Amino acid sequence: MSFEVKSPVVPTAGAIGRLRPLPVTITPGGLFGEWQRRNAEATLPHCVEQLDAYGNLANLRRVTGDAGGEFRGFWFADTDVHKTLEAAFWSGTAQPFAEETAALLEKAQDPDGYLDSYYQDPANRPQQWNELHFSHEMYTAGHLIQAAVAAARSAPESVAAQQVVSVARRFADLLVQRYGASTEVDGHPEVETALAELYRVTGHRPYLDLAKRFVENRGHGVLGEGRFGPRYYQDHEPLRERTEVAGHVVREVYLLAGAVDVAVETGDRELLDTVLRLWDSALSSRTYITGGQGSRHRDEAYGDPYELPPDRAYAESCAAIGNFQLAWRLLLATGEARFADEMERVLHNGIAGSTAADGTSFFYSNPLQLRTGHDGSHEDAPSQRLTWYSCACCPPNLARLMASLHAYVATSDSSGIQIHLYGSSTVAAGSRSMTVDTRYPWDEQVTVTVESSDDAPWTLALRVPAWCSDVRLTINGAPAPARQQVRDGYLRLHRVWQPGDRVQLTLGMPARLVTAHPRVDAVRGAAALVRGPVVYCLEQADMPQGTVLEDVELDASSPLAVAFHHTGIAPVTLRVPVRIRSAEQPPLYRDLTTAPHGPAGPAATVTAIPYFLWANRQPGAMRVWIPLARQED
Amino acid sequence: MSFEVKSPVVPTAGAIGRLRPLPVTITPGGLFGEWQRRNAEATLPHCVEQLDAYGNLANLRRVTGDAGGEFRGFWFADTDVHKTLEAAFWSGTAQPFAEETAALLEKAQDPDGYLDSYYQDPANRPQQWNELHFSHEMYTAGHLIQAAVAAARSAPESVAAQQVVSVARRFADLLVQRYGASTEVDGHPEVETALAELYRVTGHRPYLDLAKRFVENRGHGVLGEGRFGPRYYQDHEPLRERTEVAGHVVREVYLLAGAVDVAVETGDRELLDTVLRLWDSALSSRTYITGGQGSRHRDEAYGDPYELPPDRAYAESCAAIGNFQLAWRLLLATGEARFADEMERVLHNGIAGSTAADGTSFFYSNPLQLRTGHDGSHEDAPSQRLTWYSCACCPPNLARLMASLHAYVATSDSSGIQIHLYGSSTVAAGSRSMTVDTRYPWDEQVTVTVESSDDAPWTLALRVPAWCSDVRLTINGAPAPARQQVRDGYLRLHRVWQPGDRVQLTLGMPARLVTAHPRVDAVRGAAALVRGPVVYCLEQADMPQGTVLEDVELDASSPLAVAFHHTGIAPVTLRVPVRIRSAEQPPLYRDLTTAPHGPAGPAATVTAIPYFLWANRQPGAMRVWIPLARQED
Repeated sequence: MSFEVKSPVVPTAGAIGRLRPLPVTITPGGLFGEWQRRNAEATLPHCVEQLDAYGNLANLRRVTGDAGGEFRGFWFADTDVHKTLEAAFWSGTAQPFAEETAALLEKAQDPDGYLDSYYQDPANRPQQWNELHFSHEMYTAGHLIQAAVAAARSAPESVAAQQVVSVARRFADLLVQRYGASTEVDGHPEVETALAELYRVTGHRPYLDLAKRFVENRGHGVLGEGRFGPRYYQDHEPLRERTEVAGHVVREVYLLAGAVDVAVETGDRELLDTVLRLWDSALSSRTYITGGQGSRHRDEAYGDPYELPPDRAYAESCAAIGNFQLAWRLLLATGEARFADEMERVLHNGIAGSTAADGTSFFYSNPLQLRTGHDGSHEDAPSQRLTWYSCACCPPNLARLMASLHAYVATSDSSGIQIHLYGSSTVAAGSRSMTVDTRYPWDEQVTVTVESSDDAPWTLALRVPAWCSDVRLTINGAPAPARQQVRDGYLRLHRVWQPGDRVQLTLGMPARLVTAHPRVDAVRGAAALVRGPVVYCLEQADMPQGTVLEDVELDASSPLAVAFHHTGIAPVTLRVPVRIRSAEQPPLYRDLTTAPHGPAGPAATVTAIPYFLWANRQPGAMRVWIPLARQED
Repeated sequence: MSFEVKSPVVPTAGAIGRLRPLPVTITPGGLFGEWQRRNAEATLPHCVEQLDAYGNLANLRRVTGDAGGEFRGFWFADTDVHKTLEAAFWSGTAQPFAEETAALLEKAQDPDGYLDSYYQDPANRPQQWNELHFSHEMYTAGHLIQAAVAAARSAPESVAAQQVVSVARRFADLLVQRYGASTEVDGHPEVETALAELYRVTGHRPYLDLAKRFVENRGHGVLGEGRFGPRYYQDHEPLRERTEVAGHVVREVYLLAGAVDVAVETGDRELLDTVLRLWDSALSSRTYITGGQGSRHRDEAYGDPYELPPDRAYAESCAAIGNFQLAWRLLLATGEARFADEMERVLHNGIAGSTAADGTSFFYSNPLQLRTGHDGSHEDAPSQRLTWYSCACCPPNLARLMASLHAYVATSDSSGIQIHLYGSSTVAAGSRSMTVDTRYPWDEQVTVTVESSDDAPWTLALRVPAWCSDVRLTINGAPAPARQQVRDGYLRLHRVWQPGDRVQLTLGMPARLVTAHPRVDAVRGAAALVRGPVVYCLEQADMPQGTVLEDVELDASSPLAVAFHHTGIAPVTLRVPVRIRSAEQPPLYRDLTTAPHGPAGPAATVTAIPYFLWANRQPGAMRVWIPLARQED
C-alpha cells in the first residue's frame, strides 16, 4: 500500500470529477499552521487523556478481559476511540496511543470480524444487529474504517497501521457478507463514505457496492418511526427523489458525503445531481452566516426554510465538519468555486469557533448569540466551551479534521494546479511544486512562489472568494491585471512557470456589514460584521462599563474601521460605531403608536472580535447579529 | 360535604387574601357559553373515547384483573383518566364514565392506598417510590386528588363522588404517612396544590402540612442531575431564594400555584412575595403576546430573558392552563387587576387556540408562526391540531379547565362584587345576584343587570382591561362618568343597588398594532395585530392567490379596519393594509450596502383572523408578528 496523497478523500483514477487532490504540507507561521500545531500538541493529547478518563478505552479492554467494571458512556463510545485514532494517524503524532489502540482493537475483535464493545458486552449481545435504527453499529464500523484509511494512507508500513487496516477489513467483510443483499440500513449514516474510501484504499469492489446499497436502501421507511420520525434519519423518502435537506444534520451531511463518493466512483451523475440539489436547498435557506447548519436543539435538526435563530442555533461542530468534507467532495466532482467558498466560510467560523484558544475545550453546539442572563448550567447550551461531553463526538472529530487540514488546500487537473484555501503551505504535483506564504485571513496578501516546474505551460488557479470585490496581483513584482483574469471564481494564470516565479495576490478585506434575506425573521433589522472570510461578533467583555450587550445598536451611518494589533484576543479587530440604548426597561409589549423605544442613545465605538475567538475570556453575552439603530429624526 | 362554590380554588375562611370566589353560572349565547357547550358535547366525550382507544382505562383494568395485555402509554397515563374525571365532575356530564371510573379506581387501589397502574404492574413494582425524579407518582396522585376535589365540590351526594373522594384520601393519607417527615419530592410538581385543595375540602391539616413540606423540600438538589439538570424540575435553588422562573414551564407554574395555596392557607406572606417575584420575572421577559410561556421545545422550558421566538414557541397548552390557574390564585390573594388581565389574555389566545373549532383536536405546543414549507410530519410540531398525543396531557387538561371556566369569573370582598372576566353569566353572592350579558370580545358592550340585592350600599367592580383606553358607561340608560371611576383597574360603582338596575359598560376595541421590547430579537421590525384581548394573525388561506405569506409586510402608515361579519371563520376580522414583496429570491446573505430587498411592493388589503381560530382550514403558513414594510423613499 502506498499513496501519494496522505489524506482523506482520494478518488480512484476511474472516478468522475473535475479535480484531483494534491499532497500539501502546512507550514508554520499562518493560521492553518497554528491550528495544526495546537491540534497535535494540545487537542489530540487531550482527547487521548479523555478516552482514558471517560472509560472509552476501558470499554474495549473489558472485551479483551483486561478491564472490569461497567460499560461507560453512550453505546457508540467506541467511535471516539476510532476518531482519535484517525487523528493520530493523520497527525503523525500520539504514536504510543496509536500502537496500543491498534493492538487493543485487534485483540477485541470477534473471530467473525465484529467489533463494538457495547454489543460485545454479554448483557447487550442478544441485541447485536437487532436494533439498527439506533444501535450505531455500522456508524461505529464506519469510523473504524476511516481510521484504517488514515492508517493506510499515512503510515502504510507501520505495524499499527497494518493492524488497524486488517481489523477494519475484517469488519467490512462481515458487513458485506451480512448486508450485501439486505434492504436494511443503520440509523446513523457514516459507513457509506467509509466503505467507499476503503474501496479506494483496497480496490475491493464489494465495499463500494455495499456503500451504494446503503445509499439506495435508505428512504423506504425501513427504520420505523423512532423517537423523532423517519425524517430524523433521512428514511422518509428515497434519496434520489428528495428536494430538501431534512432531519438530523450530521446524519444528512454524512449521508450526502457518502452519496458523492458512490456517485463519482460509479459514474452516477443522477446521484451527484441529487446531492447538488440538496446542497442548494441547505445553502439557500438553512445555513448560518458562520456556515453552521442545524437550527434546532430538539432532534439536532435542520429547521424549516429561513428558520435561523442565532440564539438557539444548534450548528453542531460535527455538522460543520461534515459539511466541510461534503463541500470538498463536491468541489472535486464539479470544480466549482462556490464549494471552496463554503469550505472557507465554515472552516474560519463554524469549525474554528468550536475549539478554545488553548485547544482543550470545545463547543458542541455553536450559537451565534448568547444572551445576558443565559442559563449555561447544562451541557446542551453552555456559556463556555467544555473539556468534554457526555456524547463526545465533536472533540475527536475536530482533532481528525485539523490533523487532515492539509488535505483540503489544493488540487490539480489537466490545466494545472488550483489553490482553494489560503494558508502557508507547500504544494506538490509531480514535477511542479510551490510554496504559499500568507498570514491570511488577517492579512490580505497571499504569496505563491514556484519552487519547481517543467517546461510546459500550465495554469495556476487561485481562488478569488465571492466576498472579494477588490483583487490585485503582481507577478514577479510587476502589477498585472487581476479581475480580468478571474473566471468562475479563480484567478487563472496560464504560462510557462519558472522556479522562483513569485505571484502576489491581494484580496481586499474591508470590513463589511451583511444583512440576511428578509424571510430570516430572527435577524430582521440587524446586520453582521464580516471581514474577508471571518465573521465578527460583539462580546460583553468589550462593551463599556455598565452597558448591557442587548442595548448596543449598530450605527450603520458611520464607517467601520479595521484595527490591526498583534496583542490581545485577535490580530485584527473591528472598531464599530454604535448607539447605546437606555437600559430603562419598557414593558414587554406595547402599542406601536406610543413613543418608540427611546432615542438612539449616546454614540460610542466598541470592539468586535472574530466570532471564532469568542468565549475565551470570562463568560458573558455575545452576538453576531447587531440590531441597527434607528436613524435619529 | 357541601360547598357553595362548585369550582376549584376555594380558600378556607382562615386564608389570607383580598377576594373570595363566587358561584357563577355561564349562560348560553356568548363565547364562554359556546366554549363550555362544546367542551361538554365534543371535547369531554372525545377524551373519554380516547382513554379507551389508547389503553388508559385498560391499564387500570389490568390492575383489577379485568383486562390483559401490556401497559400502554407513558408511565403517568393514569393522569389522563384523572383529569378527564375531574372534567366530568365540573361539567356535570359524562356521568356513566364518571361512575364506571370511580368504581374502577376504588377496585384498583392497593389496600394501603397506593394507586398507579404503571407501578402496580408486577414488572415495575420493584421501582415503586424508588425513582421519584421521573416516576410522576405524586403528580399522578395530585391529579387523582384534584378529581376528588371536583367530585366533593360539584356532586358531593353522588356515590361516584364519595368513591373518588375516599380513594383520593386513602392515597393522600399514604403520602402523609410516607413523606410527612421526608426530604424527598416528586420530579413533577402538582401534588402540592392538590393537597392544599384537599385540605380545603376536608379540613384535614396534615394534607396542608405535607403540601408545605413539598414546597420547601424542592430546590436542594434532592432529585439529582437527571437528563436536563436540576433546573428542569426547579430543584436547583430553594424556592424562597429564587428570583427567576426556570426550567420546565408546566412544572414551574404548577409548583407556584401550590406555593400560593400554601402561602394563603398558612398566612405566609414571604412565600406569597416569592411567587409574585417569580411571576414578574416571567411576565417581564418570558411571556408571549398570547400569554403562552415556554420558548424551547427542548426540555419544554422557559428560555433566557427575551428569548421569545414565534416559530419555535413551545407555549404548551398545559403551561397556559397552569398560568391561568396561577393568575387566579394571585388575583384572589392580592386583588390586583393585572392578574385578571393576564387571565383574559391567556384564555383568549394561548388557551383558546389549543382547541379546534369542533372541539376534538388540539395543539400541544402553540407556535405564533408556522412557515411555508413547515415540516409538520411529527407530533412535536404539527401543522394542524391532532386528535390525541402520545403524551396526552393537554386535551384532558383543556377539558377540565373549560368545564370549570365559571370558577374564574367573579369574586366578592367586603366592599361588594367584582367581575373579572366577561362572558354571559349569572353571578350570586348571598342575597345579591346579577346577570351579565355580552358578546365580548366580539362586541364592546357588557350589560350587567342586578337581579336581587339587599338594602345596603355596595360596590360593583367591573374590570377595565389595561389595553382599554376608551371606556364608557351608562347606568339605567343614563350616561355616567366612566374613566373617573376607574381605580386600580376596576370601574367601581358604589350605591344601593335595586333589582333591575342595569349597567352598560363599553370597552372600546379599536384594532391596535403592538410592538415588543427591543431586546426581543425574534420580532424586531415586526408588529402584532390586537383587538381587545384578542391577538390576530395572518393565515395563508387569506392571502391573495400566488402570494407567499412570508412576503407580506405590514403597511403601518395606513389605518387598520375592523370588519364585523357573522359568517366565515370569525365574527370579527381585521382588514390589514400590506405590501407584498417580490417573491424573487435574493441570496441568503448579502452586503447591506447593496440595494435593499426591493421596493415595498404593491399595496393590498388582507384579512387577519383571531389567532385562536387559526388552523381550522387547510394547513398553511400563519404568523402573529408581521414584518413592517419599509416606508417608500
